[in-house]
Amino acid sequence: MLKPPRPRRRAREVGIDFPGLPPGQHNAITDVPGVTVGHTTLFSGEGKLVPGSGPIRTGCTAVVPAPGNLFESKVPAAVYVLNGFGKPMGFDQARELGELETPILLTNTLNVPRVADGLIDYLLPRNEDIGVRTSSVNVFVGECNDGHLNDMRGRHVGPDEVFSALEGARGGSVPEGVVGAGTGMRCMGYKGGIGTASRRVQVFSGDRQDPTEARDFTTGVLVLANFGRLKQLRVAGVPVGHYLAPPGEGEEPEDKGSIVMVVATDAPLDSRQLKRLARRAGMGLARTGSTASHGSGDFVVAFSNAYRIPQRPSEMGVQREILYDNHPGLNRLLTGVVEATEEAILNALFVADTVVGRDGHRAEGLPVDEVLALMRSCGGALLGEGSNS
Amino acid sequence: MLKPPRPRRRAREVGIDFPGLPPGQHNAITDVPGVTVGHTTLFSGEGKLVPGSGPIRTGCTAVVPAPGNLFESKVPAAVYVLNGFGKPMGFDQARELGELETPILLTNTLNVPRVADGLIDYLLPRNEDIGVRTSSVNVFVGECNDGHLNDMRGRHVGPDEVFSALEGARGGSVPEGVVGAGTGMRCMGYKGGIGTASRRVQVFSGDRQDPTEARDFTTGVLVLANFGRLKQLRVAGVPVGHYLAPPGEGEEPEDKGSIVMVVATDAPLDSRQLKRLARRAGMGLARTGSTASHGSGDFVVAFSNAYRIPQRPSEMGVQREILYDNHPGLNRLLTGVVEATEEAILNALFVADTVVGRDGHRAEGLPVDEVLALMRSCGGALLGEGSNS
Amino acid sequence: MLKPPRPRRRAREVGIDFPGLPPGQHNAITDVPGVTVGHTTLFSGEGKLVPGSGPIRTGCTAVVPAPGNLFESKVPAAVYVLNGFGKPMGFDQARELGELETPILLTNTLNVPRVADGLIDYLLPRNEDIGVRTSSVNVFVGECNDGHLNDMRGRHVGPDEVFSALEGARGGSVPEGVVGAGTGMRCMGYKGGIGTASRRVQVFSGDRQDPTEARDFTTGVLVLANFGRLKQLRVAGVPVGHYLAPPGEGEEPEDKGSIVMVVATDAPLDSRQLKRLARRAGMGLARTGSTASHGSGDFVVAFSNAYRIPQRPSEMGVQREILYDNHPGLNRLLTGVVEATEEAILNALFVADTVVGRDGHRAEGLPVDEVLALMRSCGGALLGEGSNS
Amino acid sequence: MLKPPRPRRRAREVGIDFPGLPPGQHNAITDVPGVTVGHTTLFSGEGKLVPGSGPIRTGCTAVVPAPGNLFESKVPAAVYVLNGFGKPMGFDQARELGELETPILLTNTLNVPRVADGLIDYLLPRNEDIGVRTSSVNVFVGECNDGHLNDMRGRHVGPDEVFSALEGARGGSVPEGVVGAGTGMRCMGYKGGIGTASRRVQVFSGDRQDPTEARDFTTGVLVLANFGRLKQLRVAGVPVGHYLAPPGEGEEPEDKGSIVMVVATDAPLDSRQLKRLARRAGMGLARTGSTASHGSGDFVVAFSNAYRIPQRPSEMGVQREILYDNHPGLNRLLTGVVEATEEAILNALFVADTVVGRDGHRAEGLPVDEVLALMRSCGGALLGEGSNS
Repeated sequence: MLKPPRPRRRAREVGIDFPGLPPGQHNAITDVPGVTVGHTTLFSGEGKLVPGSGPIRTGCTAVVPAPGNLFESKVPAAVYVLNGFGKPMGFDQARELGELETPILLTNTLNVPRVADGLIDYLLPRNEDIGVRTSSVNVFVGECNDGHLNDMRGRHVGPDEVFSALEGARGGSVPEGVVGAGTGMRCMGYKGGIGTASRRVQVFSGDRQDPTEARDFTTGVLVLANFGRLKQLRVAGVPVGHYLAPPGEGEEPEDKGSIVMVVATDAPLDSRQLKRLARRAGMGLARTGSTASHGSGDFVVAFSNAYRIPQRPSEMGVQREILYDNHPGLNRLLTGVVEATEEAILNALFVADTVVGRDGHRAEGLPVDEVLALMRSCGGALLGEGSNS
Repeated sequence: MLKPPRPRRRAREVGIDFPGLPPGQHNAITDVPGVTVGHTTLFSGEGKLVPGSGPIRTGCTAVVPAPGNLFESKVPAAVYVLNGFGKPMGFDQARELGELETPILLTNTLNVPRVADGLIDYLLPRNEDIGVRTSSVNVFVGECNDGHLNDMRGRHVGPDEVFSALEGARGGSVPEGVVGAGTGMRCMGYKGGIGTASRRVQVFSGDRQDPTEARDFTTGVLVLANFGRLKQLRVAGVPVGHYLAPPGEGEEPEDKGSIVMVVATDAPLDSRQLKRLARRAGMGLARTGSTASHGSGDFVVAFSNAYRIPQRPSEMGVQREILYDNHPGLNRLLTGVVEATEEAILNALFVADTVVGRDGHRAEGLPVDEVLALMRSCGGALLGEGSNS
Repeated sequence: MLKPPRPRRRAREVGIDFPGLPPGQHNAITDVPGVTVGHTTLFSGEGKLVPGSGPIRTGCTAVVPAPGNLFESKVPAAVYVLNGFGKPMGFDQARELGELETPILLTNTLNVPRVADGLIDYLLPRNEDIGVRTSSVNVFVGECNDGHLNDMRGRHVGPDEVFSALEGARGGSVPEGVVGAGTGMRCMGYKGGIGTASRRVQVFSGDRQDPTEARDFTTGVLVLANFGRLKQLRVAGVPVGHYLAPPGEGEEPEDKGSIVMVVATDAPLDSRQLKRLARRAGMGLARTGSTASHGSGDFVVAFSNAYRIPQRPSEMGVQREILYDNHPGLNRLLTGVVEATEEAILNALFVADTVVGRDGHRAEGLPVDEVLALMRSCGGALLGEGSNS
Repeated sequence: MLKPPRPRRRAREVGIDFPGLPPGQHNAITDVPGVTVGHTTLFSGEGKLVPGSGPIRTGCTAVVPAPGNLFESKVPAAVYVLNGFGKPMGFDQARELGELETPILLTNTLNVPRVADGLIDYLLPRNEDIGVRTSSVNVFVGECNDGHLNDMRGRHVGPDEVFSALEGARGGSVPEGVVGAGTGMRCMGYKGGIGTASRRVQVFSGDRQDPTEARDFTTGVLVLANFGRLKQLRVAGVPVGHYLAPPGEGEEPEDKGSIVMVVATDAPLDSRQLKRLARRAGMGLARTGSTASHGSGDFVVAFSNAYRIPQRPSEMGVQREILYDNHPGLNRLLTGVVEATEEAILNALFVADTVVGRDGHRAEGLPVDEVLALMRSCGGALLGEGSNS
């Protein structure tokens, strides 16, 4: 039976240095307590594209912001659209109300409606009021285009795949690369997909930087990376893409990729502040060399699970702790988002190995050894002094 | 066989005066040349709600901005969200690129994914590149919640209903009231649904107001009206809702309604200018008494079909006529949108007759005679001088 | 000595009925506890315009959101721009941080820089850190164009007028009409200026509507009204402007007006929620007949003084009460903003009497008796049945 | 007499390689034909701060988008706010109308009102209608905080400095570093200020990439760089800031900086498209290591001077060439903005030499030799293999 390639080593594991804040235990979005991730991977068929039949290189990824019934007990959230060439669902209501009331699902572009409908299938029996006492539910789905490798017109992701991703959601280590919604994605001319990373942020609760008064928060990021062109690639800042030979097949003539970035934190932030975090994911993206090209839908959703918002409040309001914007802690959280986003994207690239998809289209795994060699010898090149330092 | 009630007379036909700009021939969005509208109405079953079975009071409405293949030849557009409590599809890309590339479909909230998927079904065979040469398509779907009358959890609108609405799209008079997506909608405590109106706007092409140099444009509006509470209703400005007795059943305790407003014009405007038009739809809405309550998703999409934008340009760009913002013509177009929106909403209310839906829930038709009597005698009441003038 | 005309009676005082929520004690923005308002009025010179000399018909109005040092102890806030044809200061930072750190000053368009600089003059000695320990201050100034009556190029409002408005700020009744920043403003073809109104909003603290558990909040609005054309005017909804004869001088050919709307509340809302309130001010504006014409800058700022945000927090954050969006109380607050905005604008029109300004330009006071007569007899006219009911 | 330090060599001149698009002739914003830049530099006094007296390390920079009277003949424009902690003027109207009608002035935060008023002084005699025929003018001023080196409370920049910057505006090479508004600015722990760069973008007019049909456009960027912390600095991507020793004085404990980025092009784009360019300036900023910290106001304005918009159109509209978004040319322009922004910021850092300001505060020039040495030897360090490659 055809299988996706095994995951390779993560960026940090092959030696890339990420100076800055320390990562969390798993260096994953799941380091934010309560966040879980599940994947359904579809990987079958070879050869010529027969729309509706395959080959299939796609899937579905679920990021669950917090335990329990999210519709009854929502989390604060914000969205940010760096480049709106994309077809997600759920962004408008999240923008207005500043909250998420379902898990975040990721899939391919043409599958968004079926995945959204599958999520409604999942939610209706668990929430009998939806659509009866006239409330409805804002399902949240992000997407990238995997049509170069996958029979995207076949729309192979439906309710079963949604249920499986949701029910398989776990904490701890997160599978990356050629998995879930990332199965058919490409990035910077190579194979892309799912990547994740996290940062631990120590915030001093008082105005003096007294570690005995510090509290620990985490910023975690998960990306569905499907953007960019080889020439742009920067690894830990170094513009290696400029020097790398293109993969055998060459690149597509146009950059039609995209990225969805999911930002999680357990710091007590409101929606306006989460939007500030969401914008910084775009800065982490830029560090990897992206220019957010015209055809690249670059979408961010950020949430906190530090507190919950009831569907049917029994009180007028609540006493809720909110971090001050001008407390130094906010800056550290912003930095944590930039750094975790950059590393999450690189993890997607380093972990994902070569996939051959429909019509024999290949997406090569990033040539890690070449990248590392380039980085070792980059000094002179960066100064226009030839290729050795 | 159960049938929707027959349409009643429009606001202007029963005598309401709308001073201001003159309406177009049909006083409908279809007065904008090239715009067509189609409805699929589902109206069956009575009695107790059996989710998945019925009773069904719902449907689907298609507004087609221009003839031909919209994916190949798009129209400039803009969206405006007055209150984002809603679950549409397609708004993010329209915001970024300033264009529509599919018809606008309207339906109920939980049906959005199935209608979007039905629209993809419709588009794929007509556009073989979608999803293969890695482009995809931004389907555009708006919604309101018809769960008070309809088995909304049953999600009865699918590809067949989408195809039928698209293929039935016509110019000329537009069916209003209990039809298409409006079948199960309520407004201001009474039966709501689909309404439309238009305004003719004469724009002087030079800087002198010389009628021999004038050009005629049209602003047309179609609404899916499902918002508000009785107390708020203003007819031609007069706050009749304050004096009307509530319908037998009384109102729902909370306002969970919404409105989608579709604005069309044939004036040569770009996306930024169309957003200015879109915002004025919110002002027409306000004239009817709406306060855009928390639970009311108030969404606007505005488009021009004065020019088209190719999917695959063979040139770098185009010589395109654009109206100047500071030409007096723009103000007249803004006024045309406010006025047509107000009248379109009132048409939905005046035309829609009583519907009994699931669990015997009733939405009464607006008591037109009472409204007219109140308006005749309103003078004194408006001055706090008792109920007769 | 030349004096501004005496204020006339407010809309409610001449008999206009405003069904809906009850007003606060003074029916003014100052009904929100802690809010104060001050005006400096400049009214001198007659005859031909001599730029730099006069005639002068202008001034400055200060709305102070809360007592004490606002820079040290800020208030949550939001801004909303319905139509951005205007030249205010301070909106960008308020948008990002969701707070105000100075009073809100209103003046004429060309005076914004001098008023802003005067406000800096006022603040620097009271805040010795500003600009030294590298923090600076976001002064907040709104404006409308009073150039039809006033020597606007002369920029006659400077530090003295700013200090005087700030030091004269008081609670209780607020002078309206031809006063402060409103001195030279016109509205709907007649004399406009400052207007204010308020609504009391009872919010049930629990989920049952038990009045013994209710808490009282207030929404207050102050407007600088300088917009619109006579034909558009709606009083209590009735389109009297359509039937009123134009004032002797006729209208300017183009609508170049604007409006600034200041919304205050003591309900515990965050910046995102205050933006929702701010948008509803635009709906109150629409009820008066405005179409937010191209040249009309329509700007809103909304704040709550229910809690304060420290400049130098000694804690990471705070336990803060926030009203839930889906608590029914929010809807009542939204309604309170719509209603108070409509009435505030009408108060500006009813109170402001005729002013003759530069070059003999006249702005007539609204002909109140004619308006009332039209309203008494409007019924038939609204139905196209002639002018008597 | 005290003088600002002489400019040092630009980033490219000391050997930094910038793979990607080629720069224009002067590698400056003035490579966009018609754009001119002028500076007024104030540099006097030493020793202890005496507010109102000095020491003075500040100034004013003017970017003039196009020749002639901009108020009569505007340019299309857009603004983008990455982080709104700042106090500019003019952004709201630019957002609504998509145009600039004055030059862009840059100065320090507390000087914005005086500079704005000085710009009005400059414009009034040149535009006799402003404020009389009831039109007014939207002056555009950006700012950063130079209070660490400069007597910012003294507000030393007024009409004279504004006139001088405007009248001194020239094409060709642009003075960078310690000049104009950049005189007192710091960046990444070192001396910052003014920087500029440009990219040439070849756009194929037809759909085939036939160079004989190509047209040449330019994207130019000028920055006022005053942001960031040393640890973050990335030069050509390499995170040298992590390895550099802090300057003698150490850094301020908090990042209170900001950046204004001015993007110019001669490509025929409308306001919506220019906003897409403006967002990419934020990506260039991110490449230098910025995380857009809380206190950093990160503001962008982008304009095209490919066509003009008349104040008083004599025609309804115009036939105007607009580049298609989905033409490959747009992507190249986006890339040009990212690259030019990154290089402009590095130019500010490389060119600006050490300045000692008020109270003996020092801002050291970037230690260029150390930076180059670090880059030469970075390879191993980037891989965590110690400090030699």
